[in-house]
Amino acid sequence: MTTAPPWADGLARRIAESALAWESGPAEVDAFRAWFAERARTSAALVRRVPLDSLTGWQNGADVIRHASGRFFTIEGLDIHVRDRPVPHWRQPIINQPEIGILGILVKEFDGVMHCLMQAKVEPGNSNGLQLSPTVQATRSNYTRVHGGRQVPYLDYFRDLSGSRVIADVRQSEQGSAFYQKRNRNMIVETTDDVEVLDGFRWMTLGQMHRVLALDDLVNMDARTVMSCLPFATSDPAGREEGDGFRAALLRSCDGTSPALHRLGEILSWVTDARTRIDVSTSLIPLREVSGWRRTEERISHETGLFFSVIGVDVEATGREVAHWTQPMIEPHGTGLVAFLCRRIDGVLHVLVQAQVEAGYVDVIELAPTVQCTPDNYSCLPADARPPFLDEVLLARPEQIRFTAVLSEEGGRFFHARNRYTIIEVEPDADLAHPNYRWVTMAQLADLLRHSHYLNVQARSLVACLHSLTSARD
Amino acid sequence: MTTAPPWADGLARRIAESALAWESGPAEVDAFRAWFAERARTSAALVRRVPLDSLTGWQNGADVIRHASGRFFTIEGLDIHVRDRPVPHWRQPIINQPEIGILGILVKEFDGVMHCLMQAKVEPGNSNGLQLSPTVQATRSNYTRVHGGRQVPYLDYFRDLSGSRVIADVRQSEQGSAFYQKRNRNMIVETTDDVEVLDGFRWMTLGQMHRVLALDDLVNMDARTVMSCLPFATSDPAGREEGDGFRAALLRSCDGTSPALHRLGEILSWVTDARTRIDVSTSLIPLREVSGWRRTEERISHETGLFFSVIGVDVEATGREVAHWTQPMIEPHGTGLVAFLCRRIDGVLHVLVQAQVEAGYVDVIELAPTVQCTPDNYSCLPADARPPFLDEVLLARPEQIRFTAVLSEEGGRFFHARNRYTIIEVEPDADLAHPNYRWVTMAQLADLLRHSHYLNVQARSLVACLHSLTSARD
Repeated sequence: MTTAPPWADGLARRIAESALAWESGPAEVDAFRAWFAERARTSAALVRRVPLDSLTGWQNGADVIRHASGRFFTIEGLDIHVRDRPVPHWRQPIINQPEIGILGILVKEFDGVMHCLMQAKVEPGNSNGLQLSPTVQATRSNYTRVHGGRQVPYLDYFRDLSGSRVIADVRQSEQGSAFYQKRNRNMIVETTDDVEVLDGFRWMTLGQMHRVLALDDLVNMDARTVMSCLPFATSDPAGREEGDGFRAALLRSCDGTSPALHRLGEILSWVTDARTRIDVSTSLIPLREVSGWRRTEERISHETGLFFSVIGVDVEATGREVAHWTQPMIEPHGTGLVAFLCRRIDGVLHVLVQAQVEAGYVDVIELAPTVQCTPDNYSCLPADARPPFLDEVLLARPEQIRFTAVLSEEGGRFFHARNRYTIIEVEPDADLAHPNYRWVTMAQLADLLRHSHYLNVQARSLVACLHSLTSARD
Repeated sequence: MTTAPPWADGLARRIAESALAWESGPAEVDAFRAWFAERARTSAALVRRVPLDSLTGWQNGADVIRHASGRFFTIEGLDIHVRDRPVPHWRQPIINQPEIGILGILVKEFDGVMHCLMQAKVEPGNSNGLQLSPTVQATRSNYTRVHGGRQVPYLDYFRDLSGSRVIADVRQSEQGSAFYQKRNRNMIVETTDDVEVLDGFRWMTLGQMHRVLALDDLVNMDARTVMSCLPFATSDPAGREEGDGFRAALLRSCDGTSPALHRLGEILSWVTDARTRIDVSTSLIPLREVSGWRRTEERISHETGLFFSVIGVDVEATGREVAHWTQPMIEPHGTGLVAFLCRRIDGVLHVLVQAQVEAGYVDVIELAPTVQCTPDNYSCLPADARPPFLDEVLLARPEQIRFTAVLSEEGGRFFHARNRYTIIEVEPDADLAHPNYRWVTMAQLADLLRHSHYLNVQARSLVACLHSLTSARD
């Protein structure tokens, strides 16, 4: 029986200590690099684009593309109406994957420091093959072994929670532009068991993970979303100082007792209002009725060449459950831009989130980054569809850029989907009021991240990036 | 700009003071009774059952019953599969009302004491005509005046929040056994404006509302659900003592710093697990395909005579927006039983909630009372479908009963739907472990009540009843 109030048992302190531990512990960063390079040599995948019509084991119907087993996912059409918007109606292909998978990170203390068990994993859609992944990354089809592959390692830690401490366990959405109401269960589970470290797995401190998060295309989307559900460090046990106070303002933002511009109740009321007021209706339709899109033997693409295509890939992999398979994937056109504007209000860092509609969201809107777009896509859309605050991001001075890296989206469904993730600090007095945007603290985001359907997957990635800035640097 | 952390601005203290104020203020309870009796004399409604086929303005189709305007609500069929349950599949008629209405209570201080603006309102389904209702109780069809009625009074306070303080604003579900994914927006808004008190409205302290909540069939469901979203009093400013310490244990339960049996994170993980594990699928179907139910000119009823019927009513009312109309309604068969078991754990009151599936829930399960059933309905169901803990409630000794009253469900859709709401205290050492149930504190329920889809409407009513026990008594 636990009698302490939530998080009063030292978890925030332990997280802060792990975030500072990047030079010590079982794996230093240099050793990480050597290990990762070795993994890359031994677990390559040969991924070839193939015509959509040539996929083996997939039924490529005029109305739906589905696997012969009836499992995994389907590609269908979606019809979307959003009343009173610059683009009030459109149709598009969408991935329908109703099963809820598990994305889990196993945590354990070594020498009093929390470590996360991470995996170097090849995904067919990764432009560079191998990326750092959670301990477990499994669809329900995966872990019930529909495809006849090997057992998912470490899965039992996330299926039987009786002997463990659950640090986070929440269903979170994925890209609403490509998935119809997809959610995965994001889990962080702490064990005191002896854990055998299998080939391709490695214990890492939070500090080490924060460091490699700054590298292009290294930490995968699934790892980032699970990391975002970790409670935040709210202090620096080492008491280090920093030149311009940014890190201190960030740590204060992570602390729920710091002053915030809006009460959480006001943020929740704003979300409730948007979800009540905005009139979105979506319905799955046959692929053949997706007007505006062209289907060939090769692919399904938008008439303008923008947005994304549905393509086919053929995969030969080592180090995965199945050595050879084909599947449809979503290939976005162009590198996207995902950015938080942040500013200090009374010395507390706030980030600017928007209430954003996407076709596949379960509940009307989710909170998204200040800017989330592929700038190229706006060439064919009305001028008032151009995202607010895009110029503030594109024209930021170098000293305003607190974080920037190109990171990949999920490599099991997306082919070479890369976004530049950027955190830009604006002046404390920057007047950026907009009815569809709110300044919130990290502590408020942490409160919301305990529940489903508040932060979208891009915002969660940025939260993980922001949290990484609490770690000490060279 | 607010710089105080949530609820640190004295709201809990103000709520505690209003909860104690039942003898003072602009309305004493005796005066309330006189006022309410007078309203009952002047605002009667003549409600007659009529054949379902005879409704005016409604299209009584074989597949769906709908209003000629296309608004309000429809009666359709629902097909439900719940894997691995005693009753794994059934079909039933269901109300489909996708619009989100507003249930709002306006709050204002008089002489430093918070008062709520309540309304004595006739609803056709109330067995006793008049009940105490929120300030505003309006479907979207109501407030956009589809039915050509009068303007909804005080609605602007809930549509334009710029000059007010929002105390609660959250979409909450209604009965999943009768509604398909229905939500209403529960709002509590505080104003400092001068407010004209219209006929049929009255300012009441929380203490006064708590007192009348103990009376049978007086405070309606909509008022109860909004009241449940109010933050709780966590202390007694008058410092009164009580014989057996129940009230002190309840106040400690409302205080988020008191020890709880489970961390909130554990409760959330349990909810996530249930929502991931339980396999529910529902689809709307034509009424004619609802097997097991019989449709006549008069009504739609289950073959066994159990559960509920869909009937027609003809209403002639004074004091409502429209003086005469007909509509379909749901008539439950038998009085239901809705009960919390509660017990003191380390001196802190905990209540036993269950993770419950209902056909119309948006998100698989919601937290429901320990017992929620109509005992008669179980005569035709398998023995293992009999609710756990029913005997603990039915066989409780008088001194265990902390609250009991027969209260009505929503009188706009339900005809004479009455449930006995009961709160039973069991011994601190009562061993009632069950995987589908958890002991939680009031503070944890208050945390969950800030978000949608956690507590079902019956549990919210019981939360309001429990909160009422913090008020001083004779």
